[in-house]
Amino acid sequence: MDILAELNGNIATIGYGLATLGPGIGLGILIGKALEGMARQPEVANTLRTNMFIGVAFVEVLALLGLIAGFLFI
Amino acid sequence: MDILAELNGNIATIGYGLATLGPGIGLGILIGKALEGMARQPEVANTLRTNMFIGVAFVEVLALLGLIAGFLFI
Amino acid sequence: MDILAELNGNIATIGYGLATLGPGIGLGILIGKALEGMARQPEVANTLRTNMFIGVAFVEVLALLGLIAGFLFI
Repeated sequence: MDILAELNGNIATIGYGLATLGPGIGLGILIGKALEGMARQPEVANTLRTNMFIGVAFVEVLALLGLIAGFLFI
Repeated sequence: MDILAELNGNIATIGYGLATLGPGIGLGILIGKALEGMARQPEVANTLRTNMFIGVAFVEVLALLGLIAGFLFI
Repeated sequence: MDILAELNGNIATIGYGLATLGPGIGLGILIGKALEGMARQPEVANTLRTNMFIGVAFVEVLALLGLIAGFLFI
């Protein structure tokens, strides 16, 4: 019998793909709201940008941990 | 018969990927609303940031437990 | 016959990942609305925070039960 299917690869790539799904949408909402606030009140743009970076750090780390998870769980 | 599929990796990476999906979107909404409030009333930015951190802690722990779950359930 | 697939890990990690999906989004909406209310009327911030914690407890327990479920269903 011949080969029916030849699938190669590591399942960790799917894991990372899933790990970017939520943070990707979340970062879009987060930074979008910051830009909306800057457009509404340009005089607080600096405060908004500072707090935006704090928030981005919390969300971005979730997606990057998805890449590290591939090394952790062998 | 030859090898049908050569998939490697740990299913825990998919588990972590799924665990970031909800918190990733949730953190985006949460921090986005905080930034929206800061733009609307800059004088309560400190109160909003404090409460934002409390909320972030509750949501972030759900995603990080997804990484710990990979070590718990071997 | 050769090795078909070399996948490791416990399916309970996927179960926990799915269990955080709803609560993660839900907590984001819940706390985000509380922050929105605090920005709108800063004088009721304490009342909002107290009620926010009551709501957070109800939603958070759903996600944490997802972790306990991995130990219950062996």
